[in-house]
Amino acid sequence: MTGNPADRAGAILEIDLAGIVANWRLLAQRVRPVQCAAVVKADAYGLGAMRVAPALAEAGCQRFFVASIEEGVALRSILPESVEIAVFNGLPRGCAQDLTEFRLIPVLNDPGQIAEWRSAAEKHGGGAAILHLDTGMARLGLTLHEFEAIAEELVHSGPIRWRALISHLVCSDEPQHPINRIQLERFIAAKRRLAHLPASLAASSGLFLGPQYYFDFVRPGAALYGVNPQPGGPNPMRQVVRLKGKILQTREVDPGETVGYGATHVMAGPGRLATVAVGYADGWLRSFSQRGSGRVGGSRVPLLGRVSMDLIVFDVSDVDPALARPGCFVELLDEDYGVDAAAADAGTIGYEILTALGRRYHRIYCGSPYQC
Amino acid sequence: MTGNPADRAGAILEIDLAGIVANWRLLAQRVRPVQCAAVVKADAYGLGAMRVAPALAEAGCQRFFVASIEEGVALRSILPESVEIAVFNGLPRGCAQDLTEFRLIPVLNDPGQIAEWRSAAEKHGGGAAILHLDTGMARLGLTLHEFEAIAEELVHSGPIRWRALISHLVCSDEPQHPINRIQLERFIAAKRRLAHLPASLAASSGLFLGPQYYFDFVRPGAALYGVNPQPGGPNPMRQVVRLKGKILQTREVDPGETVGYGATHVMAGPGRLATVAVGYADGWLRSFSQRGSGRVGGSRVPLLGRVSMDLIVFDVSDVDPALARPGCFVELLDEDYGVDAAAADAGTIGYEILTALGRRYHRIYCGSPYQC
Repeated sequence: MTGNPADRAGAILEIDLAGIVANWRLLAQRVRPVQCAAVVKADAYGLGAMRVAPALAEAGCQRFFVASIEEGVALRSILPESVEIAVFNGLPRGCAQDLTEFRLIPVLNDPGQIAEWRSAAEKHGGGAAILHLDTGMARLGLTLHEFEAIAEELVHSGPIRWRALISHLVCSDEPQHPINRIQLERFIAAKRRLAHLPASLAASSGLFLGPQYYFDFVRPGAALYGVNPQPGGPNPMRQVVRLKGKILQTREVDPGETVGYGATHVMAGPGRLATVAVGYADGWLRSFSQRGSGRVGGSRVPLLGRVSMDLIVFDVSDVDPALARPGCFVELLDEDYGVDAAAADAGTIGYEILTALGRRYHRIYCGSPYQC
Repeated sequence: MTGNPADRAGAILEIDLAGIVANWRLLAQRVRPVQCAAVVKADAYGLGAMRVAPALAEAGCQRFFVASIEEGVALRSILPESVEIAVFNGLPRGCAQDLTEFRLIPVLNDPGQIAEWRSAAEKHGGGAAILHLDTGMARLGLTLHEFEAIAEELVHSGPIRWRALISHLVCSDEPQHPINRIQLERFIAAKRRLAHLPASLAASSGLFLGPQYYFDFVRPGAALYGVNPQPGGPNPMRQVVRLKGKILQTREVDPGETVGYGATHVMAGPGRLATVAVGYADGWLRSFSQRGSGRVGGSRVPLLGRVSMDLIVFDVSDVDPALARPGCFVELLDEDYGVDAAAADAGTIGYEILTALGRRYHRIYCGSPYQC
């Protein structure tokens, strides 16, 4: 093709790898000498695990967490041999050999998985695993009852080679919530039974609850990608995504004209609109309808009417027309309007803004070791 | 790898190509002898344009619409030469040669695009285009003023070879909305100026507004994929997706235990929970939190607490435990609980449920010519 891919794309997504590395270093520094892992599940929260994980490994990260075996297999092919890759969703029935073959460490979540992994390790070797204790999420992990029943046996659990005991905080983004302390106490009690194991409780927000939550390693995910680990307070993390949607067309509209599906927005006065090639099929959630905004030349411009599948419309009446012509960009995510700000407008959390980021965007990775 | 990809996957997405073809045939039959195109933008609404479009072409569909040049280029490589592929988002600056090279037909949306396409056609040949008139959306397309100013010149517009005049309805899913009639009248008036051109106004819902909306071809998208074109009435379309999430773990919980992030759900009594390997990173929108449901063995099971990035939790207390063990499935989308029903629970529309469908699902295409 003759044109530039960026010219053809409806939007440009810049992902700042150096910023992700800087965020990881900031957290690693904060908890030192405790280790800092990195959670790169869900394709590194939508930003591309195959780019993000190698950059973090080069920066010194030694432990990575993914959600599924497929994610682990993909990373194993590009990360250094010495790096550990653990799979949160554990051991699906019949997949023990895949984990062993790719030296992936399952996070074992129930007694059935432990039994299957032990049996697989007897036959095929391997056997490294992480034990997940549920302390209040009721999602994955051994219940306290299950843990009590088998804790003694776990100490002498060959051929499983336990690499860590972990649990997961429910309300770490609400420091005053009483469940934080309850989970901490439950975790400490369990850890006493398996004192020889490295332990980990805190993810992004948890590591801002204080050093008593650090244990032997922390496991940030969201904060690496710019989500504020302390909602409501100043954000210590760098924004690492910039999303710019391309203006396809501008138009002058008269009072009374309606904008978008459902004719939900009616122009109160004359105005100037810009239509941008981003829609909910790109993960710009439909819940931004009539609530979202973008930025042109330093000014915020409101999103009018409903988000369409492939398009959104902004009111650029108050913007210099030279900055809002076809081919110009409307900034959708940037340093000033980051993933948490967007999430507030869309009625969700920054995590979902990230994981929804679409496949049609032209992606540019910036920052060493992948300078754009 | 030794295991089966379906065993490793957190969910199975079955896409019924035969059902999509049947839906297209139903609509084509309804409007005959008017032509029936197919809208396969946004990767065929998330279902895979590279599978869907060839199946529809084999069934006799001759016109396809995509949103972007990239989508058109991909389809050009697999569709028969005789098939027309039109690009709704038109002609991005500097991309005329790409369109010509791949014989893509831009939908020209403003006078600037028309001028650029004319100039490109003079230099490089090609020149086929569709003219888009805006009749009330204020999104893409010539304004009525712009159209009036250049209509005469368009009749003699060589070297552009106009293939059609189109517009797009704003409220076609609300048959009583007065804007339908207004848009129809505007479109008819414009069509009089370019009477030699084939015309098209109706998409999925529009073609249920009556034959006066058919013109020379209709352009269904959503209805092909099971969205009800007549919201509130019986759905004449087949559901074409089935989504089954795998149970990773089950657990007994006590009264007072909390479920998920934020501890938003508190168990009123003892119960049994099943954790499924689907989350908002898979497009199971976070807005399903505390509102969604699944199905196990014919019974609906409520989604408890918040949707996590990779996981959701269902209350399976009332279900036969043999049907809700690890490795069993919770049906998330099926014939009885289709994309519109799911959308109602998530506070959105079926279109977004479809386009959000995730990349981690193990996809199985069923139905001739791609029997699974």
